[in-house]
Formats: sequence, C-alpha cells, structure tokens
Amino acid sequence: MRKFYRLCWLAAMMLVVTTVVNAQKQFTLEDLNFGGTNYRNMIPQNKSLTWWGDQLVRVGSDTCWLVDAVKGKEKVLFTLEVVNGWKKVDAELTSLAGVQFPYPDEPLMLVASAEERLLVNFKSRDIVWRQPREKGVQASGWNKKSRCMAWVKDDNLWLTDAQGKSRQITSDGSRDIVYGQAVHRNEFGIDGGLFWNPDGTRLAFYRMDQSMVTDYPLVNVPELDDTTRVIAQAAPEKYPMAGQTSHKVTVGVLDVATGDTLYLQAGDPTDRYFTNVAWNPAGTVIYIMELNRDQNDCRLVSYDATTGRRIAELYRETHEKYVEPQTPIVFLPWDDNQFVIQSQRDGYNHLYLFDAAGRELRQLTRGEWTVMEFMGFDTERKSMVIAANAESPIQRNLYRVDVTTGQMTRIDEGGRGWHSGLLSPSGKRLVDYYQEPTVPRNIAVVDVRDNVQYSYFHAPDPWDGYAVPEYRCGTIKADDGTTDLYYRMVMPVDFDPTKKYPTVVYVYGGPHAHNVDARWHYASRSWETYMAQRGYLLFILDNRGSENRGREFEQATFRQLGQVEMQDQMRGVDFLRTLQYINTTRLGVHGWSYGGFMTISLMTNYPDVFKVGVAGGPVIDWKWYEVMYGERYMDTPQDNPEGYAKVSLLNKAENLKGRLQIIIGLNDPTVVPQHAYSFLKACVAVGTQPDFYVYPGQGHNMRGHQSVHLHERITRYFDDYLK
Amino acid sequence: MRKFYRLCWLAAMMLVVTTVVNAQKQFTLEDLNFGGTNYRNMIPQNKSLTWWGDQLVRVGSDTCWLVDAVKGKEKVLFTLEVVNGWKKVDAELTSLAGVQFPYPDEPLMLVASAEERLLVNFKSRDIVWRQPREKGVQASGWNKKSRCMAWVKDDNLWLTDAQGKSRQITSDGSRDIVYGQAVHRNEFGIDGGLFWNPDGTRLAFYRMDQSMVTDYPLVNVPELDDTTRVIAQAAPEKYPMAGQTSHKVTVGVLDVATGDTLYLQAGDPTDRYFTNVAWNPAGTVIYIMELNRDQNDCRLVSYDATTGRRIAELYRETHEKYVEPQTPIVFLPWDDNQFVIQSQRDGYNHLYLFDAAGRELRQLTRGEWTVMEFMGFDTERKSMVIAANAESPIQRNLYRVDVTTGQMTRIDEGGRGWHSGLLSPSGKRLVDYYQEPTVPRNIAVVDVRDNVQYSYFHAPDPWDGYAVPEYRCGTIKADDGTTDLYYRMVMPVDFDPTKKYPTVVYVYGGPHAHNVDARWHYASRSWETYMAQRGYLLFILDNRGSENRGREFEQATFRQLGQVEMQDQMRGVDFLRTLQYINTTRLGVHGWSYGGFMTISLMTNYPDVFKVGVAGGPVIDWKWYEVMYGERYMDTPQDNPEGYAKVSLLNKAENLKGRLQIIIGLNDPTVVPQHAYSFLKACVAVGTQPDFYVYPGQGHNMRGHQSVHLHERITRYFDDYLK
Repeated sequence: MRKFYRLCWLAAMMLVVTTVVNAQKQFTLEDLNFGGTNYRNMIPQNKSLTWWGDQLVRVGSDTCWLVDAVKGKEKVLFTLEVVNGWKKVDAELTSLAGVQFPYPDEPLMLVASAEERLLVNFKSRDIVWRQPREKGVQASGWNKKSRCMAWVKDDNLWLTDAQGKSRQITSDGSRDIVYGQAVHRNEFGIDGGLFWNPDGTRLAFYRMDQSMVTDYPLVNVPELDDTTRVIAQAAPEKYPMAGQTSHKVTVGVLDVATGDTLYLQAGDPTDRYFTNVAWNPAGTVIYIMELNRDQNDCRLVSYDATTGRRIAELYRETHEKYVEPQTPIVFLPWDDNQFVIQSQRDGYNHLYLFDAAGRELRQLTRGEWTVMEFMGFDTERKSMVIAANAESPIQRNLYRVDVTTGQMTRIDEGGRGWHSGLLSPSGKRLVDYYQEPTVPRNIAVVDVRDNVQYSYFHAPDPWDGYAVPEYRCGTIKADDGTTDLYYRMVMPVDFDPTKKYPTVVYVYGGPHAHNVDARWHYASRSWETYMAQRGYLLFILDNRGSENRGREFEQATFRQLGQVEMQDQMRGVDFLRTLQYINTTRLGVHGWSYGGFMTISLMTNYPDVFKVGVAGGPVIDWKWYEVMYGERYMDTPQDNPEGYAKVSLLNKAENLKGRLQIIIGLNDPTVVPQHAYSFLKACVAVGTQPDFYVYPGQGHNMRGHQSVHLHERITRYFDDYLK
Repeated sequence: MRKFYRLCWLAAMMLVVTTVVNAQKQFTLEDLNFGGTNYRNMIPQNKSLTWWGDQLVRVGSDTCWLVDAVKGKEKVLFTLEVVNGWKKVDAELTSLAGVQFPYPDEPLMLVASAEERLLVNFKSRDIVWRQPREKGVQASGWNKKSRCMAWVKDDNLWLTDAQGKSRQITSDGSRDIVYGQAVHRNEFGIDGGLFWNPDGTRLAFYRMDQSMVTDYPLVNVPELDDTTRVIAQAAPEKYPMAGQTSHKVTVGVLDVATGDTLYLQAGDPTDRYFTNVAWNPAGTVIYIMELNRDQNDCRLVSYDATTGRRIAELYRETHEKYVEPQTPIVFLPWDDNQFVIQSQRDGYNHLYLFDAAGRELRQLTRGEWTVMEFMGFDTERKSMVIAANAESPIQRNLYRVDVTTGQMTRIDEGGRGWHSGLLSPSGKRLVDYYQEPTVPRNIAVVDVRDNVQYSYFHAPDPWDGYAVPEYRCGTIKADDGTTDLYYRMVMPVDFDPTKKYPTVVYVYGGPHAHNVDARWHYASRSWETYMAQRGYLLFILDNRGSENRGREFEQATFRQLGQVEMQDQMRGVDFLRTLQYINTTRLGVHGWSYGGFMTISLMTNYPDVFKVGVAGGPVIDWKWYEVMYGERYMDTPQDNPEGYAKVSLLNKAENLKGRLQIIIGLNDPTVVPQHAYSFLKACVAVGTQPDFYVYPGQGHNMRGHQSVHLHERITRYFDDYLK
C-alpha cells in the first residue's frame, strides 16, 4: 500500500521534472554543503526518538511526546515551559534536547542545563536528584544505578557521588599524564576512557603516560576578533609517529565506597594496546583486549577488579597481517557465565559465544557478509539484534538472531537500503531509521518479537523542484579480475549522451570506510550534485581495502597502502573509457585524508591519465602517520622499509604533470602539516609545481561555513583547469 | 676614446639584434634568476679587488695579482699552491677568497681555512700568526693592532688573544641573553655587536636581554635527506611586535689587559635603542646614538670606557615624525678633537663637523641631494670621499669633499650611472665599480688627489645574442602634482606599438629602498626580462616613501603606510592608460615583503583596476610587525589605532575580486606567517578566494634554486590568469 503510494508520488515528481524543466531551481553550496546557510532545509527531515523502557518518546527542543508505537500517534508528555515551572532554582533549562529516560519503570527524565544535571520525576514533578556541572569538563560518565558521575578536568579524574559531593581522584594529570579519556588515538574502537561497572560501585578508567612521546609543533593563530592575544602561539600535539616511541596505557580501578584506586597488573611489554574494556555482570571482573604493538596477536584477558591481579587469558587471535579488536565482549543478560565476542577470524566479522572460562560454545552468525553492529538482546526470547549487510554488500539491514539456534530473521522495514536501529532496553521494540536510493528518510517502529513494522515517518524529498542529477550504481571487476567493486556515478544535469563530459573521480579508498551504499542517492556527497549541476560527471568506486567486504578484501593493501587501491581505481578509469560520453582527456581526481593520499598517488603514478587533482589533508609518507593506524597497515618503517619507500609520495614528486592543489588545515592533528610541507619541498627540489592552500585554525576537516568556502575553492580549481 | 669605442660596440650589437632576429637566443629562468644553473654566466663579469696600502691587489680563488694602478697590468703576487707550500701544517687552504692585507707597509696577508686563520708573510714565507677557528661561531671581530679576536658561540662572548689563548668572557648567554651580536633586529644601521677600540685593547659589545619578549612559533620541517630527525620541531623566534614588550640592550666593555668587564651606565628608560657605537681615537671614550622608543628624539652620548660612566650628551636631534641615526660618528684622522656626524636634519642626509665637546663647527655638505655613503678620508689633503646622488636622483657618484672649504669634486669615471667605491687606507686611491643603463660593469682606478681615472676593466655584455627587451626610464608626477617620480618600463620583446600588451606593475614602495636607478638596464630585475620575453610589459615606479629623495619624500607615509604609496602608484596606472599599447583590462601587480603589502593593498583598494596579483611575504597588519621598524613608521597600535586600522588588509579582504596568490616562506622570521594566515582567515570569513603557496624551510626570501621555482610559479600565475 505504502509502496504503491510512493511509486505514485515518484511518478508525479518525475512528471514535474520533465515538464517544467526551465523552472527548476539551481543548487548553491549554501544549499548543499553541511556548513551552508540553507543546508538544514535541504536535508531529509528527521525525528529525534528515545526509549523509556518500551515506550517511545519523541524529543523536541521544547516538547517531549509519547509516541504510540503502533499507530504513531503522539501526545505531549511534558514541555520545556512546564518543566521549568517545576524547577525550584532560577537557572532555566533552555532545551530538552538530549533528554533521557534511564529507568524503564519510573517516570524520571535526565536533563541538563549549562549549570546542572537534573533527574526530574515528570509525574510527581519533583527534582529527584541534581548535580552541578563544572566548566571545562573533558569527559564524563554517569551511572544510573549509583547515580555517581565520573568526570575529567585538566586531565585529572574527579568523582561526584549521588549526594552531589565531588572529590578529586588523581592529581598528576597533565599534558603528559592523561586520565579518563580516549587513548591510543581512538583506534581499536576506543571512544572514551571511563567505564562504570553495572551497578556503579567501581569505575575503570584509562591512564595514559605520553611524557615520552614527541610533540608535533602545531601553531594557533589568534582568531581575528580575539582582543586578548596578539601573537600566534605554539600548540604542541603529542604525536607518536610510526616506529617511534609511543605512549603507555594502564587501566585503573576506583572503588567508590572505599575511595581506593588500583591499577590492573598487565605487566610487560608496556607498549601494547589495551582496548574494549568490559565488566562482568557482578562488577568484579574486568575484561580487556590486549593487542601487541605489531597488531597481529590479540588476547582477551580477565582481571580481578578488587586486587588488580590478572586472572586468565580467555581468548587469543592471531593473523599474519593484523587482528582488529573493535568491540568489548557482552555478557548474556540471562546467563552471567556466557559472553559474546565479535571477530573476523573466519574472514568476516561475526559473533561467537563463549563461556566465562574462555571455552568457545558456538559461532552465532556465519556467512560471506559482515556483522556491522551488535545492538542488544531480547532477553525474553533469548535473541540478539544486529545490523549486517547480509542482503547485499552495499546494504545495511537489521536482524534478530536466536542465540540458541542461530536462526536469523530480518526485522527492518522493506529490506532494502541502509538501516540504523535504536533498540529498547528490553529488546522488545526497535526504531528503524532508513534510507534507500530513492527514499530520503523513513522511520519505522518494529516489534522485534513479532517482526511487525509500523511506519512512523516519511520525510518528503527536500530537493523537490531542483534540477537533480541522475545517480547510478553498479559494479565492475577489481584488478584481480574476480572481485566485484561497487561504483556510483552522478550524471551531469541535463545529461546528453552524445556530449563528452569532464569527469571527476572522487576517492577515499582507505580501510574502515566506504563511499557507495544503498542510502539516498547511493550516499552521494552533496558536492557531487553541485558538480553535476556545473556539467561534470562524477565517478566514485569503493576499491579493495575499503570496509564491509570482509577481511581479505580490506587487508589486500597490507604493507603497501595505496597500491592495490590504485590498481582498482584504474579499472574504474578503464570502465569510464568504455563510455562514449566521458571526455577522457579531462579526467580529474579529488579526495581527502586517505583520499588525498590516493589523489596524489593517482596524479603522480598516472600523470597522463589525470589532468587535475585536489588533495585534502593528504598523507605523503606513512612514516609521519601515527603508530596505531600506521603500523597496523604498514608495520614500522624499520620492519618494512621497502613498503614505506614504495608508497611514499616524496619519490613521486618528479612525476607531477597535471595541476594538483593540496589543501590542509593548519591545525590538523591527524595528518600533520609536515606531510604536505614535505611534499612541497620534494616538488621544489625536482622543479614540479603543485598548488597549495591552508585553512588556519582548522583541523583535519573544515568545520562549519569554512566547508562552503573549501568546496567553492575545489570547484573553482576544476573549473579553472579541467573544464 | 673609450666612449667612442663603446658607441661603436653598441652599434655593432644593435646591428646584430636587427639583422639576425631569428637566431636570437631565448632566456630561461636558469639564465636569469640568481639561483639558476646558468646565472653566473649571464651576469656582468666582475673583478675582486682589495687594497694593500695604496697598492691594488686582485684576488682570485687561487691567485693574488698585484695590479698596476695606472696601466692595469697584473703580476702574480702569490698563488694558493705556493702558499700551501709555505704552510707547516697539514690542513690546506682551499681558496684565497677573502684575503686581506691589513698592514699597508708590511707584506702580510690574512687568510682563513675552515680550521684556522693565518697571517702569512708572503715575502719571507713565514706564518707570522695563526689562530684555530671554532665551529659554530655566530660572530667574530679581529683587531689588527692587538691581533685579538672576539667571537661569539652559543650566544656567549669569547676572546682569543694574540698568542692564540682563548677565554670565555660571559657565561649566561642563551636564547634569552644574547652577547656580541646585532640587536634591535638590525635596524638603525646595526649589523653586528662587537666593537674594538682602535688599538684593540678594549672591546665594546652588545648584550641583549630578550627574556621578556614573546616567541613566535616557527616550525622546522626536517630536510628530506635528514636521516636523524623524523618529526617537525618547534623553532621559536623572539619577536617583539609593535606596541608589545621589547628587549633590553646594554653595552659592555671588556678590558683585554685586566679581563674586567663593565657596562655603560645608560640609565632609564631601558627600552631605548643604543646604536652607532664609536670609539674616540685614544680608545677610552665610547659614543652611542641613543634613540627613544618613539624614535623621535635621538641623542649622541659619550661614556668613559674605563668606568662606564656617562660623560655628556653631545648632540640631540628631534623630529615630529622620526629621527634615523644610521651611522656612527667618525673622528678626523688629523684631529682627535673633531668628528663628523651624518644627519637628515636639513631634509637630506648630509655631513656635519663637530668638536669633541659637541659644538657644531660647520655643515660639510649641503643641497637637495643625499649623502649615500661616507667612504673615508684622504688625510694628506684633509678631505673626505663620499658617495652621493648630487648629479641626479637615480645616480650614485663619488666625490672628494674638502673638509675645510666644503668644496666638492666628482672623482668617478664618467659621472653617469651608479658608482661604488673602495678607498685605499690612505685615501689616495679608489676603485670605482660602476654600471650605466647601457654599461654592464666597468671598473676604474681613481687617483683621488689628482682626480684622474684609469680604466681597469670593461665587462662584455653577457646577454649578447639574446632577445633583450628595451628598457625605458622616465618621470611622472606624484599624486601631489609636483614631485617627480622615476619609473622604469620594460617593453615586450619584439614590441609592436600597434598591439596591446598585458602589463605587470612590479612594486616595493617601502622606505630604505628604491627600484629605479641608473644601473645597467635601469636596475631591472631579471624576472622583468623573462616576462618581457613572454609578451608582458613591466612597469616599476618609485613612489613617495622610497629612499634617496630626502626626508620629506620618504616620511610622507608616516602613520599610514601604503596610502600615499598607492596614490602614487595609481598615478603610474594613469600614465599607463595614456599609452595605446597597454591592455589596461589586463593589469597585474607583483611585489615582495613591503611590496607584498602594496600588492594586496592595490588589489583590494582598486579591485577593478588590477586583475591578477602575486604578493610575497606580505605584511597584512602592522601590529604583527616588529617594534623597531613598525613603530618608526606607524607609532604603536595604542597610539595610532586609526592608522593601523586604516592600512590593515584584514578589513580589505572582502574587496578581493581578481586573482591573488600569496606566497610566503614557512620559516619567515621577518614577516611572520601569521600575517598571511590571518589574511586567509579574513578571506574565508567573508567568502573571498585568494590563492596561497608556502616554501617550507625558507625565510623571508627564497634562497638558491628555490628562487627559480618561485619565479616559475609567479610567471605561471600571470600566464594562467592575466595573459
């Protein structure tokens, strides 16, 4: 029924497109770029939803509505104005954004103003609990059972207890000694450094000693409106480069009751990676994935949280290339003695069931596809909810998996496209946000157990009335002759197959990322639409080395980054050459970060193929990239000198022939400016002429409206030299 | 006779030009740029000459010849090979370059190898004196009487006595406390910090405390072939910005005999400038020009070098704009009680005679022209030898001036062009190096007393056979309607007055510099010739504010740098508009440093006039320039906020319309990168799009072959957008 409706609606739209072509609106970068002034009106509408137990709540900035999960009807739960009326202090809440309902059975909502955090009973209208918020907090973690808050300021750890009393836990925090924050430069799935046990009686936390790590000398240029500073200031960034001395991480445990802190006795070697911190349900044992510096030997180790003593090694995984622990183990809610591990050991990321002694019980999922997310359990039915690309390599669908039988049932709406889920605490219900190539955004509410979907929201096409290009998707063979690679092609607006169009290859190409999927417009980046409007054809290919296609696909690039990727991209160029409407004398290439590395690699390895390139934040030589990411894929410069030399772009500077603009953020702490500067040096030495631009004050990517400026700049470069 | 010869020769050359036009060679930047591989063959030949008393010696890298001052005949004095045969140590001299003959009546030559300094008697073939050379010496000064060497290493002062014994004089030298080097950022004529008294018994030296000066965070990117360093390093530069806290300078005096050091008791305020250090002939009194921070009140003060006590203020000069002490006083060789001061106080730089008590005896030179250099005395005739532009504002000629009568006699060869002199110690003879607009380089030897010139060398035209453009020179009126401004115009090669040529204005425009003079090709920069060959017309105008035209002319820009200069440059554009062969829709502008500031000023104040600009190392806002230069011309930002705001280019970023490329050296310690970065920020904020390039490892100017790369880059930009 709805499908029929959509077809009708699409047909109606296409009719409009065909008949009133002259009235079509033109996009500007202010419309299309995320930093643009009109961007908010040009993206598919969305709804912010959260769970209160199995009840769905829609959160607006000034109203919370209870949503009928079946009929989608909404009724006001409370409003910002009303909540402010309940409060007994002066400072008003200014928004309900981010409201949570931590207790399924209690009418309590957690909300924060700039000054404090509040737990409000929205039935009795009482403030149940309140806590002041410090300024300059670098990280924080709250436990809903103990209502303790752990937080970090000036790199030291603090604790505020349920009564609102704060005490300082560590005192030697500094640039050198960092507490309670992400370590290992956010690799290995790390996104924080505070880990409460389930009942909030013990806190595990990271301590990172980076006193031995060299500084990269970044520079802060004062903001133009800063009247307090005149001269630029040094802003050194601890940056361990591949093969160099890295930081040391330990895991501390705070006992809230006693106030005592101990450190897990992990022993030597100290330059391992400690990741995926997890607790047993009782909150007495800590599990850590410990990965050697070479990243080819990973062990799951348990520690006694009350003594710090190592208990046992429960699991070990090695691989000749590298092993990638990305997620903590998760205990079954119905069996404290069994946990689930994610591993790529059979070639694809899958789930495995172990008992607490480290005995493998069984593989829970299996197949030539990838578990993309573990979302939670349905305790009553003893099943798990996951996201996976089991339907198609470019899709993401949601499934219920029976833990006992391994039976897997797709539970999302439609089974096409790209689905993200938000599971209720009990696992009974799920919100399904999704896009399809022709669907801007739909939201459904799923009954996990009954596998029934109720449509909640269909976003209208925000580009209605504009001259929208055609987005195509397909596959070609990789350079190995067998592997399918997915591409996206954005056709020039008003495409005429008898013409020949200048064509830009957009590329990323690195691991843990992909470009082409079954989202709206095949996940086309909005700049592609802008270029299509200006008469370019855009081509985007996910080469081997990119994500979601299994271990062999992604690890094909090991110890020689960029090489297999280039071979595949050149098969993309071969494909373009078969298309009559492509002007193969006017091929451009653009990418950022890894894609910047790819752009310069392609420009200098195939100087007669690519006429114009724009490379953003490019890696030039992997010896200047950081230890964790760099050594995973390249080993160390000492171990793999040939590989480093082969892929280094310094040695390719002399091949530069076309026009290449390199763009960086002056304050890029990820791919430090040394990369681009050294490439410029190499070019000057051999007499080649790249162009260059820098955004002072910006990091690895341009924020806010500066992204509009950037894309205007990139576009102009292709207009100047490729058109 | 020679004039006739030259005319014939020129005629012959022009004949060649006319008849075999197709065979003319084309210049490359390797020919024309000072960093180019063929540059040495393309500049006028030169001869390195030095005086041994009144005997002239030509110094080659492996031979010294005695030159007959009248006939120019040369006979070998000694060769490198022979000198090495005399030496009694293993380490060989590798070159005679830099040989000096410090004692007029003794056959001694001072020569240095990497390991040691030697005084060699080239008659007796003895090594009279030798001294080892330290590595890493930052500065040194030798006294020929005492044969003591003062030197600086790690910012500390050392002394090596005549016997070769070294002792450390200071021990607190550091980045913060600097001894024996140039202070006040080389302004006020300062080029060193070691000042021997005449007989080498006492050494005056600068001590600079810059501990209170902020650092500018420059960054060193390792050289590509540096195997010892991986990561970039901070290279902070003490940089006192206008209106900020500056360093403090004191003058120490070392008594060589006693080893005692004292400091001159100059008193408050401590942030004055102490410059032009001079000794009385007896070596017991020190004279210093002391300039207040506002730079409008300068006093000549004498100190007792044996006690450090202030003796007297001998002279004071004030001006509502600024006073510029540039040269130390000089005592008459025949009267220890009289000295000569240089001052612009009557509007032009002239010489004045004072007695040691500070009584003015008389003005020695006078006129609406400028004394450009005081070169020395002829004691026997009681006259001085000076360089001045008394013949024409764009010439530099050499004169003898009678100290008693003030009578001035031109003594150079020909009286045209641009002359540099090297006076013999007695003042009897002078080497006259000169160029004229059509003379690449001539050298004459002048008998100062008889005013007779003997031609020694005529360099052949190194550009014979090349397609050389026409160089024109003329004057237009300044924006004040009365002042003559000199311009140079370089015509396109194969100029056809019926065509219209894209035209580039090259500009500097700042004080203490000029572009147009009566040297070869009117001092045309070689890049202008390169551009003329590529079909551009070049126009260069010395606006008000530039040097050699007197105080009012140069000081017209006070407190509003760039404004009068732009008005004059726009009169230049008006003049270009009167010329049929100029394509006024294709006007470009290029300049470096102050000229970069002028380039962006012109591009943004006259966005409809200039289509393309290239600005190198530009000042963007004078509040980020250093105290000494910046406050002289602009006062402080606190005193002159309107002036700073008016000339700031931050406020002009929104006017940018044409194509502007900004180019800087990443390690520029003069115009720090903050200028360019802040302009980019301003442009990003208002949505304008300058281009940018940076040379890592380079300072305010590009060295060596990088200058070829730079000028290729500049040329390409005009080719891309102006042609």
